[in-house]
Amino acid sequence: MRKIEHIGIAVADLEKSNELFARLLGKAPFKTEKVDSEGVETSFFQVGETKVELLQATRPDSPIAKYLDKKNEGVHHIAFDVEDIQAEVHRLKAAGFEILNETPKLGADNKLVVFLHPRSTNGVLVELCQEAG
Amino acid sequence: MRKIEHIGIAVADLEKSNELFARLLGKAPFKTEKVDSEGVETSFFQVGETKVELLQATRPDSPIAKYLDKKNEGVHHIAFDVEDIQAEVHRLKAAGFEILNETPKLGADNKLVVFLHPRSTNGVLVELCQEAG
Repeated sequence: MRKIEHIGIAVADLEKSNELFARLLGKAPFKTEKVDSEGVETSFFQVGETKVELLQATRPDSPIAKYLDKKNEGVHHIAFDVEDIQAEVHRLKAAGFEILNETPKLGADNKLVVFLHPRSTNGVLVELCQEAG
Repeated sequence: MRKIEHIGIAVADLEKSNELFARLLGKAPFKTEKVDSEGVETSFFQVGETKVELLQATRPDSPIAKYLDKKNEGVHHIAFDVEDIQAEVHRLKAAGFEILNETPKLGADNKLVVFLHPRSTNGVLVELCQEAG
């Protein structure tokens, strides 16, 4: 766990939230990206070495749509930058954490990502991410 | 907004969660601290330039006790490091954000802190913090 790579925030309306977070952070998002496999459209703001990622659902079965139905807008996940994602999966599994996908998948921002179930991490959805080659 | 200063996570049992986050992050907390004015006991883990702060309530009327009653364990707030907290309060108020305490108060870790109401920030409780002199 080298740093916090980003904080993911679930939003209902990406356009409105981009405007809101630009006012909050004093800067525009540096990119937006659709991730069809996850059913999300995202935007990224740089804050120091970390990013704020806003996530809007693009279809009703998207994890973000389900999250908004259940919990409303707010912090959705915390992503940690790791050097070797497969080694971290092995380490964390051995340490008793519940891994949602043991095989890393390609997420936004050209990252290989793995999620840990929030019931094993005090209610926090934890993402591990490693720059894809 | 220079960097993410810390991510605050509400927990029911600080001792258990310290052990859990030490396993997750691969390191021990670098300090623990009671903030009587807020009714919380906290611990801090360094992750890159950012910190993870765990917060346990020390009395039933603590904001963390109320949060746990309503929402359970999980991410409680995101704190941004600012150079001049009073200037940021003025800027954000003019930009339409709802400031919870316009006069900065002394929080954990020797910081002057101001909170923004989550209803003006997409459900995210935002903290501004500046190192106290």
